Amino acid sequence: MGKLARGVALVGAGMSKFGVFKGKTSRDLFVEAFVEMLGTVDKGIDPKKIEAFYMGNFSSDLFEGQGHLAPILASWTGLNPIPATRIEDACASAGVALREGILAVASGMYDIVLVAGVEKMTDLPTEKVTDTLATAADVQYEVPAGFTFPGFYASMATAYMDKYGATPETFMKVGIKNHEHGSLNEKAQFGAKISTLMEARKTSAAKKGLPIPQWTDEMEFLHDDKANPIVAWPMRLYDCSPVSDGAAVVLLVSEELARQFSDHPIYVAGTGQASDGALHDRESLTSIKSARLAAEQAYKMANVGPQDIDFAEVHDCFTIAEVIATEDLGFFKPGEGWKMAEDGQTSRSGEKPINLSGGLKSKGHPVGASGIGQVVEVWKQLRGEAGERQLAGNLRYGLTHNVGGTGQTCVVHIFEKRD
Amino acid sequence: MGKLARGVALVGAGMSKFGVFKGKTSRDLFVEAFVEMLGTVDKGIDPKKIEAFYMGNFSSDLFEGQGHLAPILASWTGLNPIPATRIEDACASAGVALREGILAVASGMYDIVLVAGVEKMTDLPTEKVTDTLATAADVQYEVPAGFTFPGFYASMATAYMDKYGATPETFMKVGIKNHEHGSLNEKAQFGAKISTLMEARKTSAAKKGLPIPQWTDEMEFLHDDKANPIVAWPMRLYDCSPVSDGAAVVLLVSEELARQFSDHPIYVAGTGQASDGALHDRESLTSIKSARLAAEQAYKMANVGPQDIDFAEVHDCFTIAEVIATEDLGFFKPGEGWKMAEDGQTSRSGEKPINLSGGLKSKGHPVGASGIGQVVEVWKQLRGEAGERQLAGNLRYGLTHNVGGTGQTCVVHIFEKRD
Repeated sequence: MGKLARGVALVGAGMSKFGVFKGKTSRDLFVEAFVEMLGTVDKGIDPKKIEAFYMGNFSSDLFEGQGHLAPILASWTGLNPIPATRIEDACASAGVALREGILAVASGMYDIVLVAGVEKMTDLPTEKVTDTLATAADVQYEVPAGFTFPGFYASMATAYMDKYGATPETFMKVGIKNHEHGSLNEKAQFGAKISTLMEARKTSAAKKGLPIPQWTDEMEFLHDDKANPIVAWPMRLYDCSPVSDGAAVVLLVSEELARQFSDHPIYVAGTGQASDGALHDRESLTSIKSARLAAEQAYKMANVGPQDIDFAEVHDCFTIAEVIATEDLGFFKPGEGWKMAEDGQTSRSGEKPINLSGGLKSKGHPVGASGIGQVVEVWKQLRGEAGERQLAGNLRYGLTHNVGGTGQTCVVHIFEKRD
Repeated sequence: MGKLARGVALVGAGMSKFGVFKGKTSRDLFVEAFVEMLGTVDKGIDPKKIEAFYMGNFSSDLFEGQGHLAPILASWTGLNPIPATRIEDACASAGVALREGILAVASGMYDIVLVAGVEKMTDLPTEKVTDTLATAADVQYEVPAGFTFPGFYASMATAYMDKYGATPETFMKVGIKNHEHGSLNEKAQFGAKISTLMEARKTSAAKKGLPIPQWTDEMEFLHDDKANPIVAWPMRLYDCSPVSDGAAVVLLVSEELARQFSDHPIYVAGTGQASDGALHDRESLTSIKSARLAAEQAYKMANVGPQDIDFAEVHDCFTIAEVIATEDLGFFKPGEGWKMAEDGQTSRSGEKPINLSGGLKSKGHPVGASGIGQVVEVWKQLRGEAGERQLAGNLRYGLTHNVGGTGQTCVVHIFEKRD
């Protein structure tokens, strides 16, 4: 156990723009991502050769009133009659769908598998979105106690601050960094630095003849309760990933077929997945056990350690989540993550670049799509196709870390460039 | 492709009673099924040895307000931190979850995998249940046109009647047969023959001093618009599977480990899955293409044909569905299924016994659990442990046929007893 019967490679990847798209359904977003993916297969692919379709989606049931979404998406791209299966593990749905796709290829059942993540969230009013997201928590214990996700992660943030000495400013710096990264990503929901957003507010006020806010820098802006209201202290608006629409897809093939489709396939070096009980039932609020375990499995399979990872896309649904992730993944020791974040070590010029895409914070967080959105970034970076935001150097290993709920699910993948 | 890297066997199976259980959640039902399964592993199993958990569920999101159910169920049986993944393909969720479990073992990633199907439907009022089930149809085309599932299957029934000459009485006979089978199943929601239910009504009327209905036989009873109202003609109340709560689980291991756990393992001989577009987009209303394709795959893998199958559990969400299934599975020629049903050839004394458990019609249809509920019956029959309803003879092959929606998904499995 713990070893795949055969290797698996990525030979294509695509995504829709992430953002708010009134009038578009998850079907439309999926088609956008699918079509972009087809164009990334170096030697081309006839879609009729795809043998199975796995789709991560958290809750089209509640967001769009549509269950049984996988065969419908398949029908919108002419993929029927291949098997079409939906995977749901809350915000880790797409990462787990990827894992299922990998196992399916490894099993020998299929050689060519499409994996997508899809979510259309913005048709509901905000309070209904919050209610829908809350179904990823424990409705028997946590929800009746009044918890929603900003509250959960705020609890983790205060526990972390208390234990290690981080401050709300730590988290603000994570947000600033991810918006800087996202400003280089044309697919990002917020493709602007926080300083740019701040200046735009000043200009807008000036145009309207209103008093011009006197923020001198981003930190001052982020401390302004009106510009950056508290959602659940210490998590403010700019500590929270947005409500988003989006889709992302990757194409998997067995390792032996990889060169038939791609000049530069990206190999799946490791995969790990673990589960946990609800947050109220944990030993610790400052670390996510399922993330540590999933990472351990993925490192073991890939035969590498945290030091070998060139960059990672981690699940920054809230800024605190990124800090904890960098520790759970072994990049930094427990209690050190916040210092590294403050020190700029997780920026694109730092020791361990995190969320080059902008992360969920800036790129957007269509919850059931995010796990594959991360993989699209790793694909681009490892192939040297990330344009303006391409990380320099000879990159070999990229990692994705995708969390469901507060860690009831975590799935970690390690990808490798071999040529 | 199409061949598993290694074989997979069932070494345990259990289910809760199916029915209406006020005050019980899907967690409670799952625990009941899980505990029963543990007792069926001949040589015992330490639950800590289970390496992954797949759970089929259609819509705990809408039925119970609970998303991300897989890790929660895992936590209720102490299974964390193993991977816990929800599979959703409407009413085929559990059958597809089984397939994912099989692929996961075949992939080499796991040796021991738990697969469950779970649904708790009866907390919602009936009209909300209908709305929830309708999310398995196409909400962009079919639902706005006023279709719900009784209507879909009624359309298939009228098309079938028109094409082949079946009558509403054909379908009534399927219901009578399945209730007879279910009367031998202590886990069935309706564990009584229709004749028994009819007599009970007479007795009740007599006790209340009301006029005693003069039905002389079941067919007369079923033609009574009051006793058996039309839901969507020609489908009447007794043509429709009920709204149910229930859970079922099976334990899978790699073939090489089977004898370590079981004296009489049941082997997975074949698996098939296919998808299709919505009903309005089909060439035919009298056959489900995804079922034909899934069956073809499963037969090919098992290297057997329809004639080799000793008995089958098919997806009789409506009586018409069973008739069509017996043709799609190749048991009878197109247009012949209804004659065979009328002739008693699908009863336990017939040529091809169908739904020995009572089927969804009598056993109950907790939608996301039904696919594994079928497998539990095959497990019992092949092991000779089906008690009063044990089919005579030396059984070798049993088949399960699990449909999502009107066939947007179909998954077929063939199981084999080798000793």
